[in-house]
Formats: sequence, C-alpha cells, structure tokens
Amino acid sequence: VVKHSASTSLVDKANYRHFMAKEIHEQPEVVGHTLARYIDMATERVSLPVDLPFDFREIKRVSIIACGTANYAGYIGKYWLERLARLPVEIDIASEFRYREAPLGEGDLAIFISQSGETADTLAALRYAKQHGLHTLSIVNVTTSTIARESETMLQTLAGPEIGVASTKAFTCQLMVLATLAIAAGKARGELSEEDESRLVHGLIEIPRLMSEALATEPQIDKLAREIAKSRDVLYLGRGTSYPLALEGALKLKEISYIHAEGYAAGELKHGPIALIDENMPVVVIAPYDRVFEKTVSNMQEVAARGGNIILMTDAKGAAEATIESLVTIILPDMAATFVALVYAIPMQLLAYHTAVVMGTDVDQPRNLAKSVTVE
Amino acid sequence: VVKHSASTSLVDKANYRHFMAKEIHEQPEVVGHTLARYIDMATERVSLPVDLPFDFREIKRVSIIACGTANYAGYIGKYWLERLARLPVEIDIASEFRYREAPLGEGDLAIFISQSGETADTLAALRYAKQHGLHTLSIVNVTTSTIARESETMLQTLAGPEIGVASTKAFTCQLMVLATLAIAAGKARGELSEEDESRLVHGLIEIPRLMSEALATEPQIDKLAREIAKSRDVLYLGRGTSYPLALEGALKLKEISYIHAEGYAAGELKHGPIALIDENMPVVVIAPYDRVFEKTVSNMQEVAARGGNIILMTDAKGAAEATIESLVTIILPDMAATFVALVYAIPMQLLAYHTAVVMGTDVDQPRNLAKSVTVE
Repeated sequence: VVKHSASTSLVDKANYRHFMAKEIHEQPEVVGHTLARYIDMATERVSLPVDLPFDFREIKRVSIIACGTANYAGYIGKYWLERLARLPVEIDIASEFRYREAPLGEGDLAIFISQSGETADTLAALRYAKQHGLHTLSIVNVTTSTIARESETMLQTLAGPEIGVASTKAFTCQLMVLATLAIAAGKARGELSEEDESRLVHGLIEIPRLMSEALATEPQIDKLAREIAKSRDVLYLGRGTSYPLALEGALKLKEISYIHAEGYAAGELKHGPIALIDENMPVVVIAPYDRVFEKTVSNMQEVAARGGNIILMTDAKGAAEATIESLVTIILPDMAATFVALVYAIPMQLLAYHTAVVMGTDVDQPRNLAKSVTVE
Repeated sequence: VVKHSASTSLVDKANYRHFMAKEIHEQPEVVGHTLARYIDMATERVSLPVDLPFDFREIKRVSIIACGTANYAGYIGKYWLERLARLPVEIDIASEFRYREAPLGEGDLAIFISQSGETADTLAALRYAKQHGLHTLSIVNVTTSTIARESETMLQTLAGPEIGVASTKAFTCQLMVLATLAIAAGKARGELSEEDESRLVHGLIEIPRLMSEALATEPQIDKLAREIAKSRDVLYLGRGTSYPLALEGALKLKEISYIHAEGYAAGELKHGPIALIDENMPVVVIAPYDRVFEKTVSNMQEVAARGGNIILMTDAKGAAEATIESLVTIILPDMAATFVALVYAIPMQLLAYHTAVVMGTDVDQPRNLAKSVTVE
C-alpha cells in the first residue's frame, strides 16, 4: 500500500480560501527550508548542496535568464551578485536572449530560473547557452523537470508544489537561493570576509521571522485593497532591489486583478511616466530606510505635488522620516538593507491577492494565464 | 548688428500646429545631417568626426547610461553593438547605475546619452564613471552642455533645437549616431569586413528616404488615433530592437496623451501581462518581416484569441504573411532588418501625436513634465 497522505495535504488549500493565500502564508516556512538547504545553521556559513563545476574566480560575466516573475527574481539576484561578488551580471528575458545573438564568453556562467523547470523560452535559452560553451546553472522548484535535467548544475527551491498561477512562494525561494549563491560567489572571489559572510548569513536566518512579521500587515492591506480595487491603474516605484520588486508587485496585480499596474525605477518617473499621475492614480512606493531613501522621498514629493495617492511601504524609521502625506503607510520590520526584497515581497503579494478577492476574479486561475508556459 | 534670423527660424513652428509635429517631420532631414557627419558619403564608410581616445579592441564591456527616451535609444544601441561588434553591452537607467555599485572594468567604455546634455541623473552617472577610470563618451544634442564638456569624447546629434517636451527627432538622431558607432566598433574589432561596412552604411544612407515614406502613413495613423483616443490602456509589443522601440512607443503615448501605455517584449506577454487583454485593449505590434516575425505572429495569435485589437506595424511581406485579423495594419517600407528601428520610430511618434491632438492635451507642454530634467 502506497500512502499519499503527505503529498495530498501539500496540495489542498488547508483553511485558506485560495491556494494563493495558502502559498503566501507558507513563505516563512518554505523559505526557511530553502535556506536550511544552502547554509550550515551551526556555523552560519553558506554551504551549497552541490560542488560547483566552475570556479567563481574565473567567471568574468554572469547572464541570468528567465521569464516573468522568475525574471524579476533574477533581476534582484543581479544586484546581489554585483554588490557582494563584484561580478558583472546581465539580466535577460529568455525570449530575447536567444534571438539577439548576445556575445557570450566561453566558460562564463548562465543562470536559468524557472519554477516548473519546463518554461519553453527558458529551456531554449539554456540549450543555446550550452551550445555556446557556458556553464549552466538552473534554479528550479521541480527537480525532475527538463531544465533541471539539462543544466550542468541544479539548485532546488524547496517551495513545495505551487498551485496558484501567480507565483509567490516560488519567487521568494528563488530569491533565497540567489542570496546564498551571491554570498558563495563573494566568498570565493575574495570580496567577502568570513565576518561579512557570517553577518550576511545571520541576516538571512532572520528572514523567515521577518516574513511572519510582514504577514501581520494583512488586515491593513486587506483594507487598502478595497481602495485599490476602485483604481484603473497603479504605479509601483522603487530604487535598487526595490526597483525589480516594483516590477514584480505590478505584475502580480496585473495577473490576478487585471488592473493595469506598472513598475518603474523611482528615478525614471520624472522622465515620462509622471505625466500619467493625477488624483485617481495610486502609487505604491517601496522605500525601506536605506541610503537611497532620501532620493526616493524626493520622487514621492513629485507624486504628491500632482495629487497622486501614495501608498508607502517602509519601516518605522522611514515612516518617521518621510515628510509626505501618504494615503496609507505600511510599516515593515526593521532589517539589514541587503535582503529587504525577501520581506517586502510579502505586502506586494498580499495587496494583489486582496485586491483580486475584492474584485471577485478567479485568483488561482486568472484569465488567459497558464501555470507553466510550455510554448514559446 | 547681430542677425538672429537663422536661429529664430529654427525655433518657430513653421506651418505646423505644434513643435512636435514639426520635429517629427524634420527627421528625414536632421537624421540625414547627423549621418553625413559620421560617414564619408563618397566612399560609403564610417568616418567619426573625432579620434577616439581608446581602442575598441581593448574594450571588454560597454555600459550605456541614460534616462527616459534616451535610455531606449541606448537599449537599441546595445542590440547593435552586440550584434555588429560582438561587444557585451549593459544598458542602465542613470538613477540606478550610480547607486547599485555596479562592478566596472577600468579602461572599459561608458556611453551617456542626453538631448540637453544637462540631465542630472545622467551627469551624476558620468562623474561616477570617470571616478572609476572608465572611458566616457557622450551623445548629446547641445554641444555646450555640461555632459558634453565633462565627457572624454562627445558625439553630437544634429537634430537642431528640440522644443516639444516629448523627444522625437533627438531620439532618431541618437539612434543614427549609435548605428555608426556600432559599425565603427565592429570594424575596429575585426567583426565586420569592408564589405559588411559598405552594406551597412549603404543601408543607413537609405534611412532618410525610408523615413519620408514612413511619414506618408500619417493620414492612416490620424484615423487610427481617433480609436486609440477612446482607450484607457494600450500595450506595445516587439522582439529584438522592436522591444525597446515598443517601450519608447508606449512612453511617447503616456507622455502626451496620458493614456496608460506599456511596452513589453512580445515573448513576455504570456508570462503575465496577457491577463490584461480583453476586447477593449488595443495592442500595437511592431513586427517587420524578419527572422523573429513568426514568433511575434504567434504572440499576436494569443492576443487575437483573447479579443485584443491588434494594430500591426509591418512591411508588405509581413502584412501578406500575417494570418491574423488586425484592426489596422500600417505598412512600412521594405528595408534591411538591422536598422528598422530608425524607420518604425516614425509611426510610434505619429500615433502618440495624433492621439494627443484628438484628446486635446497640451502636446508640446504635457502636464507634469519638463524638457530637461536637471534635478535627480
């Protein structure tokens, strides 16, 4: 007798109304599981579960290639690899990478990210990279997938089955793998000391707890969602890793609420999109209190001066320092600046989810979308 | 007595209703002027007006840094430099470049693009790059500007004064400079033969005439604009250089009509934004008949199946081959694939312009926007 109880319980909704809600709330747990696979908890050091078939010191450039949400995870990973390992990283859309004949350095590294491991564009890009003599590393949730099998190195996210079409826990688990990989690369390249490594790993160990704290903003976000649900358009702004997170926040809202949301680098607002802003336009500003906070506040002032309704996602210090009237301020936990995206992802997901619920759309099966895109 | 007649005539509207219309129509002329500065017409070879203080063979990576429309010109330039010179190029938003501490290779090249030469974010990025030992090259329209003065090499666009806040002729002149620079780089690096160079330069010489032909689509686009003006949202899709051109087309419409337009890589549509598509959503598809045409048509089929209204920008062959019912097909001249963006930019601009005119917005001075953004 083969028992399936464990796997069955993994794919029911538990007490949640939608898989997406369940998957959002699972994140502290599954991100913690993923982290545990990539570090040694006792020594607080990175410890990858596989031996890499290349030396990070010999890699000159990294290409990260993915589609949709996984692409935005990769974009955040780019910032981390550049900052922590001083490695030049190019982020590429899989469908563009293949056809633009990018100049690739033989022996360099290409990273492919896909929850299903079956994304057709990403798979085709992987095969293209292999033909061109690159080392290939995939970050996948399904270890039996084609991308997992065909890549030289496979790093697994331990998100468990993701049923909601709009990716949530797979995204943050991808981020966690990228974070540990960036630390490993920085260490290997001599850019991070043991002390740096300890400090960064210690920061990652805090993440599941901080995610739980971020989940506690849910009642406030549920209320905010009733306002957002009346909007036709929403802008999301951020700087640094909060810029790709703004892209992801906007994508999430688009996917399940069908509201036309768009993410922008906060500094780009005045170079065009600010023309869109009037008193009907909510603007979600992702602004932890960090070294670019002042710059982002100045972009917020431009929004406020034109009547835009600001939804500020920040921490206690940021809320105290921001001298702008916001429609709503969501206060997230204080934390070290490097890995904030892992925690600020939560209110992005909650906002999209509750907005879609208010609007009555099919949250887990939004129109026109498939969970795994196996055509080009 | 100092006569100002020449400069005065340059900055009146001639017989046009708006500066923007005049500037759109000036493009065959000013793009031709710009080209004439960068090639030797007699021999049909690239001939840069300055000696470069670096050798393209020794450049390992290029960063292109700009804001807004100039950033999209740079993005197209990236595709050209990669394809023609096999040089890895990273395109960066100026406000992000400075703060993310990108790893930079001393002696590598950074290119800055700014119409005014005073864009604050771009100027700050230029100073940052100089501090880090990069060669700096600027592409500017105002040769007395700060960016022109502070960069090691300055390449001028000969667009003449651009008064409309939404950039048009400066954009295509920036593209023309980038096109010649990419050929020069390909030649210097031994990636292009003399025959390749002749063929490519010959293709550029055709551009002003092809732009004039593209301007002849204006009555058809004027009619289309009456439909677009009723829309709340528009998507723009493209692959290859038509992807950044889609971003620019969407930005243009945003800036002057305040319609929420957004550009996407055509292959990304199914990874999220397709959820937005219903029968009220016009989708502008930029698809010259090239080697990715079939892929783009398959993305169009997804749009059509969901009721989206397709506006197809293609050539005669593409129109014949596309088996999709489009709302409108705009037929542009047949031309070699590499530099199509220079010509397809015209219908993007005309569509934004006529839509704004129908809507009665202040075309030359759109709300919230300044011509030259001299704050960060």
